[in-house]
Amino acid sequence: MTSFNTVSLIRRKRDGGHLTKDEIHYLIDAYTRDELPDYQMSAFLMAVFLKGMNDEEAAAIAYAMLHSGKVMDLSEVPGIKVDKHSTGGVGDKLSLILAPIVAAAGVPVPMISGRGLGHTGGTLDKLESIPGFDVNLDLVRYVEVIQKHKVVFIGQTEDIAPADKRLYALRDVTATVECIPLIASSIMSKKLAEGIDALVLDVKYGSGAFIKDMEQATVLARRLVDIGTEFGKNTVAYLTNMDQPLGYKIGNWFEVEESIECLRGKWPDDVREITLLLSGAMIWLGGKAGSLDQGISVAIQHVNDGSALQKLREIVEEQGGDVAMIDHPGNYPKASDTALFIAEADGFVTGIDAYNIGMASLELGAGRREKTQPIDPTAGIVLHKKLGDEVKKGETIAELFTNKPDMLPVARQLMNSAYTFGAKATEAGSLISRVVDSGGSHPFRYEEVPALK
Amino acid sequence: MTSFNTVSLIRRKRDGGHLTKDEIHYLIDAYTRDELPDYQMSAFLMAVFLKGMNDEEAAAIAYAMLHSGKVMDLSEVPGIKVDKHSTGGVGDKLSLILAPIVAAAGVPVPMISGRGLGHTGGTLDKLESIPGFDVNLDLVRYVEVIQKHKVVFIGQTEDIAPADKRLYALRDVTATVECIPLIASSIMSKKLAEGIDALVLDVKYGSGAFIKDMEQATVLARRLVDIGTEFGKNTVAYLTNMDQPLGYKIGNWFEVEESIECLRGKWPDDVREITLLLSGAMIWLGGKAGSLDQGISVAIQHVNDGSALQKLREIVEEQGGDVAMIDHPGNYPKASDTALFIAEADGFVTGIDAYNIGMASLELGAGRREKTQPIDPTAGIVLHKKLGDEVKKGETIAELFTNKPDMLPVARQLMNSAYTFGAKATEAGSLISRVVDSGGSHPFRYEEVPALK
Repeated sequence: MTSFNTVSLIRRKRDGGHLTKDEIHYLIDAYTRDELPDYQMSAFLMAVFLKGMNDEEAAAIAYAMLHSGKVMDLSEVPGIKVDKHSTGGVGDKLSLILAPIVAAAGVPVPMISGRGLGHTGGTLDKLESIPGFDVNLDLVRYVEVIQKHKVVFIGQTEDIAPADKRLYALRDVTATVECIPLIASSIMSKKLAEGIDALVLDVKYGSGAFIKDMEQATVLARRLVDIGTEFGKNTVAYLTNMDQPLGYKIGNWFEVEESIECLRGKWPDDVREITLLLSGAMIWLGGKAGSLDQGISVAIQHVNDGSALQKLREIVEEQGGDVAMIDHPGNYPKASDTALFIAEADGFVTGIDAYNIGMASLELGAGRREKTQPIDPTAGIVLHKKLGDEVKKGETIAELFTNKPDMLPVARQLMNSAYTFGAKATEAGSLISRVVDSGGSHPFRYEEVPALK
Repeated sequence: MTSFNTVSLIRRKRDGGHLTKDEIHYLIDAYTRDELPDYQMSAFLMAVFLKGMNDEEAAAIAYAMLHSGKVMDLSEVPGIKVDKHSTGGVGDKLSLILAPIVAAAGVPVPMISGRGLGHTGGTLDKLESIPGFDVNLDLVRYVEVIQKHKVVFIGQTEDIAPADKRLYALRDVTATVECIPLIASSIMSKKLAEGIDALVLDVKYGSGAFIKDMEQATVLARRLVDIGTEFGKNTVAYLTNMDQPLGYKIGNWFEVEESIECLRGKWPDDVREITLLLSGAMIWLGGKAGSLDQGISVAIQHVNDGSALQKLREIVEEQGGDVAMIDHPGNYPKASDTALFIAEADGFVTGIDAYNIGMASLELGAGRREKTQPIDPTAGIVLHKKLGDEVKKGETIAELFTNKPDMLPVARQLMNSAYTFGAKATEAGSLISRVVDSGGSHPFRYEEVPALK
């Protein structure tokens, strides 16, 4: 590895210049080997935050972080491996539903997921609400499980992109998190390490997303797709709205429960629309359908014939989880305290700020402010009314569940700020707003897909 | 001291916002107490570099750095204490000349100086070329010496603005040095710690200065004066040109030698003009003259009557230096090797790039690339021709002196790049271009001062 003058590289980025691949690799590698101190990296990151990075630089960072650890080789697993990644939201349980659907359709889904932080939930926390479910498989077991079931759920191990872990921890304490090229390379370094062949991205915008603005989210989507393309992976990103929570249930076990309901065919409209779109795209990319439309039909079929639910049951069992909870979710333990959030007047729900709902759920015990904080799997919120719904005075709008009754007043306050009401029903905007792809042979348009209607 | 959320302060600066005095004090104090890590400070500094700071923030940084260490109290020393600070250049020996002049006029000059780095020299290195001269006085001796002689020369002790020392070291390795508000607060924290009542600044621009551009240098001058004013010190800054070296001699002992010549009345024009202006301003601010013009006349008088030279001799003796070298500078040891830089054709000197001259001097042994590098007091350059001078083919333009003859070719190359020649004499621009003051009762204009002519 060639060595460079670190100060002059920081200076060039500071002055708005660009670094070569070799220079970026040097920075990341030297940092990972403890040869480049935190204080130089943080100055560099702030310069990147304020001066940006071009596609080549972002791809070079992703490459360096990817190769700082183990890159999985799933070539012995037959089929085109496809994963999905969401930039995170409130009530976003889609992975729990679509991974079994896509695996049931015969497409291997190697899924390395994250945990919840702040107002957003994480797939690992939700899975761990199933008693016994173990997300800490080593990489040998990872390959075994996907071989056997075409799906596996694990967390980022120490072996996967360790440079990304270190860099993220540094960004977290130096106000350099919300930087699109760094977000994009961080996401892609982890996803590329999974051993995937193709990737479907759900890039969220709106009050409950990390990026509120759709145009900014589109820039991120473009970056993600460009990095994927640079690495030879078929990559597509859908821009989806996260102004109100997805589905009706928020909280770790609550979201598993709602996922089971979906796999039994009882879908909230919004969850159905996005899940089927993403599943369809994955099935198509995985070669098990000839078009997006067909992919969606295949997905629907695997829900209808019960094979997707069976797949979830299988993987829960394989990873040590209690399948009785999948079969009889009603038996799951309940939180000690419940409170109702009641309509004070007649009207229509004109807005549900997903951020505030996420924060209310956190206060009830379902989320964490800091990475080490424990979470309560039974805490959460069940919505009864969503955007556009009519409410009558005295009707239940939502139920709050917690083992920390002291937190009910603050959660209730957040619910109050989240919901807005009006005299007339407002129509919800499009849930899926845009598609960003690499311009290849797969046109990922979704407007004309009959199966989605 | 109130505690703040460091990440949110970095974020605010990153987004172009401003910090309060308390917030700035918290950052600097926590950093000095090792409660705020280098990596957060360097991210903050890069944000400051790219987003700037207003006057209040720069003054708050200066205040916090000043009070991180000892602030000298010179109230027991009678008189108005006035110092001068130069932002650094090539051949800039003015402190060695003006401090004795001003002290001879009865104005106490408490001078804490720095060392040379890169193409520029430093007052401490020049003084140390006098055998035995000790710049490492403690602060008790500092007060004693200024009591006795009205002048003292020391280096920045560990007690003086330690936060500035740490911050500068961090800036040096994170490409955040060339940032005007940070430069201004760094300079002022050290100067204010000296116990001064007033300050005259020589802010240099041009090829041999740190800031090449006059407008940028003016911005720095404005910042410096504003911080001084904020602290209740009468402060004035002169913008002076550093396109060609000051005087004819460059190198540590060479500059002491030329300073002695000046104090004996044998002045190069440029050194005379700036030294008299700055001395005059200091004498006026120090209350030993009723106007700038009178201050300059007083300065001239103290050179003419030998009292300024006598003052230099006094302080050299007091600080352990060999006065025989002041009395007989010709006895100083010579470097082992000399080379002549000769004119290859008839013509006029149309440019002398001070930066390249400074680098040539460094290569010969008179300077240092890194702070710990030793320097050679006998190495340096004696110019025979300056801007506008006529040269004949075969005439000596400059002499190079070194104990590292291997370095002569590279020094000669730098001399070649430094000098440009033409068929016609070009007139040198103004040496003193602009004055920046706090708009108080002292008009520091210099255009109309007859004594300077």
